[in-house]
Amino acid sequence: MSHTDVLLNSEERTAQLLSLMTIEEKIGQLIQPFGWKTYHKQPDGTILLDEAFRAQVDEGGVGSLYGVLRADPWTEVTLENGLTPEEGARAINEIQRYAIEHSRLGIPILFGEECSHGHMAIGSTVFPVPLLLGSTWNVDLYRRMCEAVAAETRSQGGAATYSPVLDVVRDPRWGRTEECFGEDPYLIAEMAEASVQGLQGEGLDRDDTVIATLKHFVAYGSTEGGRNAAPAHMGLRELHTNDLLPFRKAVEAGAKSIMTAYNEIDGVPCTASDELLNELLREQWGFDGFVITDCGAINMLAWGHDVAKDGEDAAVMSLQAGVDMEMSGEMFGKHLRAAVDKGLVTEANLDLAAGRILKAKFELGLFERPYVDPERAKTIIGCPEHKELARELAREGIILLKNESDTLPLAKNTGTIAVIGPNANNVYNQLGDYTSPQPREQVATLLDGIRAKLGDVAGARVLYAPGCRIKGDSREGFDTALAAAEQADVIVLALGGSSARDFGEGTIDLRTGASVVSDHAWSDMECGEGIDRTGLHLLGVQLELAQRLHALGKPVIVVYMNGRPVVEPWIDEHAHAILEAWYPGQEGGHALADILFGDCNPSGRLTVSVPKDVGQLPVYYNGKRSRGKRYLEMDVQPRYPFGYGLSYTTFEYDNLQVFRQTIAPDGTATVLVDVTNTGTAAGSEVVQLYLSDKVSSVTRPGKELKGFRKIHLEPGESRTVTFMVAKEELQLINRQLEAVVEPGEFGIMVGRNASDVLSVPLFVQEEA
Amino acid sequence: MSHTDVLLNSEERTAQLLSLMTIEEKIGQLIQPFGWKTYHKQPDGTILLDEAFRAQVDEGGVGSLYGVLRADPWTEVTLENGLTPEEGARAINEIQRYAIEHSRLGIPILFGEECSHGHMAIGSTVFPVPLLLGSTWNVDLYRRMCEAVAAETRSQGGAATYSPVLDVVRDPRWGRTEECFGEDPYLIAEMAEASVQGLQGEGLDRDDTVIATLKHFVAYGSTEGGRNAAPAHMGLRELHTNDLLPFRKAVEAGAKSIMTAYNEIDGVPCTASDELLNELLREQWGFDGFVITDCGAINMLAWGHDVAKDGEDAAVMSLQAGVDMEMSGEMFGKHLRAAVDKGLVTEANLDLAAGRILKAKFELGLFERPYVDPERAKTIIGCPEHKELARELAREGIILLKNESDTLPLAKNTGTIAVIGPNANNVYNQLGDYTSPQPREQVATLLDGIRAKLGDVAGARVLYAPGCRIKGDSREGFDTALAAAEQADVIVLALGGSSARDFGEGTIDLRTGASVVSDHAWSDMECGEGIDRTGLHLLGVQLELAQRLHALGKPVIVVYMNGRPVVEPWIDEHAHAILEAWYPGQEGGHALADILFGDCNPSGRLTVSVPKDVGQLPVYYNGKRSRGKRYLEMDVQPRYPFGYGLSYTTFEYDNLQVFRQTIAPDGTATVLVDVTNTGTAAGSEVVQLYLSDKVSSVTRPGKELKGFRKIHLEPGESRTVTFMVAKEELQLINRQLEAVVEPGEFGIMVGRNASDVLSVPLFVQEEA
Repeated sequence: MSHTDVLLNSEERTAQLLSLMTIEEKIGQLIQPFGWKTYHKQPDGTILLDEAFRAQVDEGGVGSLYGVLRADPWTEVTLENGLTPEEGARAINEIQRYAIEHSRLGIPILFGEECSHGHMAIGSTVFPVPLLLGSTWNVDLYRRMCEAVAAETRSQGGAATYSPVLDVVRDPRWGRTEECFGEDPYLIAEMAEASVQGLQGEGLDRDDTVIATLKHFVAYGSTEGGRNAAPAHMGLRELHTNDLLPFRKAVEAGAKSIMTAYNEIDGVPCTASDELLNELLREQWGFDGFVITDCGAINMLAWGHDVAKDGEDAAVMSLQAGVDMEMSGEMFGKHLRAAVDKGLVTEANLDLAAGRILKAKFELGLFERPYVDPERAKTIIGCPEHKELARELAREGIILLKNESDTLPLAKNTGTIAVIGPNANNVYNQLGDYTSPQPREQVATLLDGIRAKLGDVAGARVLYAPGCRIKGDSREGFDTALAAAEQADVIVLALGGSSARDFGEGTIDLRTGASVVSDHAWSDMECGEGIDRTGLHLLGVQLELAQRLHALGKPVIVVYMNGRPVVEPWIDEHAHAILEAWYPGQEGGHALADILFGDCNPSGRLTVSVPKDVGQLPVYYNGKRSRGKRYLEMDVQPRYPFGYGLSYTTFEYDNLQVFRQTIAPDGTATVLVDVTNTGTAAGSEVVQLYLSDKVSSVTRPGKELKGFRKIHLEPGESRTVTFMVAKEELQLINRQLEAVVEPGEFGIMVGRNASDVLSVPLFVQEEA
Repeated sequence: MSHTDVLLNSEERTAQLLSLMTIEEKIGQLIQPFGWKTYHKQPDGTILLDEAFRAQVDEGGVGSLYGVLRADPWTEVTLENGLTPEEGARAINEIQRYAIEHSRLGIPILFGEECSHGHMAIGSTVFPVPLLLGSTWNVDLYRRMCEAVAAETRSQGGAATYSPVLDVVRDPRWGRTEECFGEDPYLIAEMAEASVQGLQGEGLDRDDTVIATLKHFVAYGSTEGGRNAAPAHMGLRELHTNDLLPFRKAVEAGAKSIMTAYNEIDGVPCTASDELLNELLREQWGFDGFVITDCGAINMLAWGHDVAKDGEDAAVMSLQAGVDMEMSGEMFGKHLRAAVDKGLVTEANLDLAAGRILKAKFELGLFERPYVDPERAKTIIGCPEHKELARELAREGIILLKNESDTLPLAKNTGTIAVIGPNANNVYNQLGDYTSPQPREQVATLLDGIRAKLGDVAGARVLYAPGCRIKGDSREGFDTALAAAEQADVIVLALGGSSARDFGEGTIDLRTGASVVSDHAWSDMECGEGIDRTGLHLLGVQLELAQRLHALGKPVIVVYMNGRPVVEPWIDEHAHAILEAWYPGQEGGHALADILFGDCNPSGRLTVSVPKDVGQLPVYYNGKRSRGKRYLEMDVQPRYPFGYGLSYTTFEYDNLQVFRQTIAPDGTATVLVDVTNTGTAAGSEVVQLYLSDKVSSVTRPGKELKGFRKIHLEPGESRTVTFMVAKEELQLINRQLEAVVEPGEFGIMVGRNASDVLSVPLFVQEEA
């Protein structure tokens, strides 16, 4: 028997290989240095391997590399000094070849890459951020995106991705809100399953699939004050009911990797939690993949959480808690060898962890086919189909929040359109965090989209002025913006936020309004990882710009591009129409133009409640009934509820019924509702099913999403939508922390958002 | 043996009595109707008993009455139709007499009254609210207040009080923040012990002690969004470390009653929690008193939490979870009899609960001496000693937040002083919630205090104008206020909030500035129970008034009277001096005048962190080290830290040492520090000891208060302050939820507030 024998299964091959390995080689499998540091790009696009990397391979091997192709200010890899798709594939081949040929046992490297909404590499398709993906409520479309992302990533050699992000967002002050699907565990769980299916496909041993890494395990979306990596305050019942659900579903869907969160829960850091990693995840859920930390999470055990005395203690503690691989830290590499010598960890501990990594590599087929085809990378990456898919996702996820007197859609012959605002023609502000810089021509800004849409329309004139920046108090662009708006029939005003890392100084001149946009974003970052906020309002002088423009008395259509809900009551009241586009990705401008001019009927629905005031937080639709009704200043209701979004047509709900209205605890009820397009435009509606438990042994939310269908209806068309409601939907986590269905009356609610539903009862009988 | 045999102990007498009682009589002991509804006041001050009450006594008895003497808008008892102390004592005697003479077994009623900062009855001394009491950091003085309150209350027959409030405030949006001692469990625990000692004294069988009721059990100060009675999100470790600590200490101090909180914790309502009431409180802690619900908390199980099917289910559930008495609800009275018949509760269940109530009555001596002496009530209530104590507490708890260029203290011959603001001469706005209306002459407003202070000073002139209200946008008082300020040498501006229930229409004329204050408060309530806020800024046009006054260029001294931290950066920056007086009680005006004019050197220290912005919440000093460092807009530090407060003198800390720097886990270290008054005024300093655990098996806060001493020093005087640090201070709640001391290094920090300390290490050895 040999590990090279492809007739053996991956467990057997792993065992064989482990038996040949030294302690150093086993530890080598658990480490993941920064990938972009392993090489230096040459003027001809080829690479030179870094000495330190060579030494590391020679001395014990490198299990994994993080972000070989990651370009962004952190890596200091730019469009100029970064690699094209073809060059990237060649580079990864070369790195891989060195590892295989210079390590004693020829073990291939697992290349881990970021790709939550597109591979974070130059030239790769940039899809909309997950907050918009969630807003599509279109699981199939998202699954197709994951397939596309996996194909692009793997074509360059990336074999593991650090997505999906399954955090349940409970506080939009958090800068990573944009990276999440939303506030509802059920919706996230549906997306989670789709992402595993889409990324991992029919199997990992292919050239178009990658390992999905579920993150961040767990409760990272519920941290104190919306601050990144701060403690999560919650009990076990809440943890199981909300935050663990998407992870459980994704594990059941076969996810092969999971990432520990930085945060603690009730005093125990996730990265040191045997209960979470070994007991719950592995023993109870049967997870058979490997556990990787978040970047630097082991260090945080010693410096931050202070549950470890030093780096060695932290390394030992996390390994024994069930961590297999340290993402881009140095604690495993520095300390595990000595820890073995001191008897703090056993070789069996190392075998478990290294074995899980090696098994994944066998499953990926890396031993047989470690190299990729650069020509294929060139063809697949950024291909027209993926571009079209990016546009389709944006079209389905952009949300129409307001449309007074049918301001939208605009006629294409509207005349002169002033496209104003800091996000109207800003390449990076519409891409979101975890994006690499991209060639200018790859990104269609809102201005690009509108120009493209109206290019052939006689009499159509498009004026542009940035007006102001996202942050700062400069009003030097106001005059130009007002002058443009003065000439216009309609004003399209793109406001919001920016997660663009600081790629350098911007080149938009606020005074001339010159639409000179380089590949550099402005220093306007107000969102993204590590950028948490105390306010949810627009920064800088954006509101003032809106007020000045509104004073002209012309229709003002506000387009938000941003990563968390915007709280601007004045705009809610005065704008004639509002579109929430989150960060809509490289095709966002085209998608917005499609919607603005009626080529696409908006069908996005909010997956986060939009508060009226930051002082209302937390605001999420599925709170307990006892959460209170009002503050002195206002009620506790959001400005726009979960599930909300308008359309250019109208949908009516009727005839909600439950077929088999009384079921056994293990029975299944069928819910039917008729939905009719009663307007004059074709359009898609997101039919949402919520459940309430009238009486339960522990408290439950007043309303919990338990089903949804996105359906397309022609004008006048009617359809009966069907949902099944069974154990998974009905169950609660009882006082003994068991998942059970309790008999009694339930409310089945179906409607267009969490605040607008029809309702019928459902009865669950006592156990026979 | 008979229950009337005083030679038996209370357990034996209870058992004897129970053996004679019917089921109805037992249930009767568990109920607590509203006291103020049992009688009708006659023109001559005597009372007529209500028919419904008579019937209730006749039919099975009334275990307790809630708030016989409570006067406030809710009870519709006013100064005019309420009872004087003497009348109140007579009324309670009459009610008691009826109960004893008309119930089959002559069981006396337990009169329960509110008295968290004074008995909530007409004429009783109104001490400062607990938030100010906490700010005194003077446990002995607070204990003396509790003795005074107990004497006043018991003199009228009140035998149980619904205080102390031991909730750990984590979100000042909560309207009940004013009712709490602050955000720190250790400080609250110290106050908790003192309150039990002060209220219950040497024994309950006296004419000057009452039963202390610890509330609200538990986590009621950590509810979602600062909303009253909303769910608490926390795990068991946090619960034990923070919220349970003060309760445990008070139980250890001998508290005889505890009140269940409205809220749920992780899905389980406290009022239905067998784990909290029977397991933890009774079995583990050995609590031997009785458990009462909050008012209506049993109803909430069926309507709000929805863990009970109906009222009967709720009554059964709460009784079996360990509740003995239902505060002023109807669930026990309506449903328990039928529940016994249906076998849902047993007579043994009733015996347990009724027995605990009866035992308390025996311990109180109510069977032997059920009546009080009205003459004594008249003498004790509001006596000069209590009045002086109320002033002393206010003097010690008012906090000097800012004192630019030694603006304070003012010389008495300053000349003309303009006393401005909605809280300058407002009788009720300085008393806080849970206060009954009081005769005008009983309350010294800020204006009263200043006038009294300067009455004999030649050339001193005091002008007054209210300026504006707490809420609303009326500026009609601005002109009068500005005119007064124009003539003044100094402006004292009293702003803030109001917890005053709506006693009717106000009578202050904003335009004339006439200081006509009736016993009616304005409709300005913005604080107190059920009044939670989304903002922490001043309401109405108060800030604008401050800005207009400041523009006059004269010294502006801002005095806040309010129930939660004020966030007003402009005032922090521009006011020349700021005093935080919380709601300082009936003598608050004198205490403030003492401080303003230097007859008292302020020594209050914050027990809640004052945030910079509501978007920073939660802000409390004892967060985990991993809680994050900054938001985009600002850091996470408070504007004024926990423990902060200025003085008219300066204190230096020096020579911090630990005697026995290395101790065993069960050892005791002695911490010594020299504190010197380096200024020119005598004054009191609150020397604060904080602890940090360098490495621990579960995460701990960066800093935890574990000791404090309030010391008085003459100018130039130096004192060595000593603290003992042992198991109780060092221990944590480990992963197994056990309280243990872990070996290793600790940091001992001593200083003037949580952000300004000296530090030395302490070492705990491994167990031998």
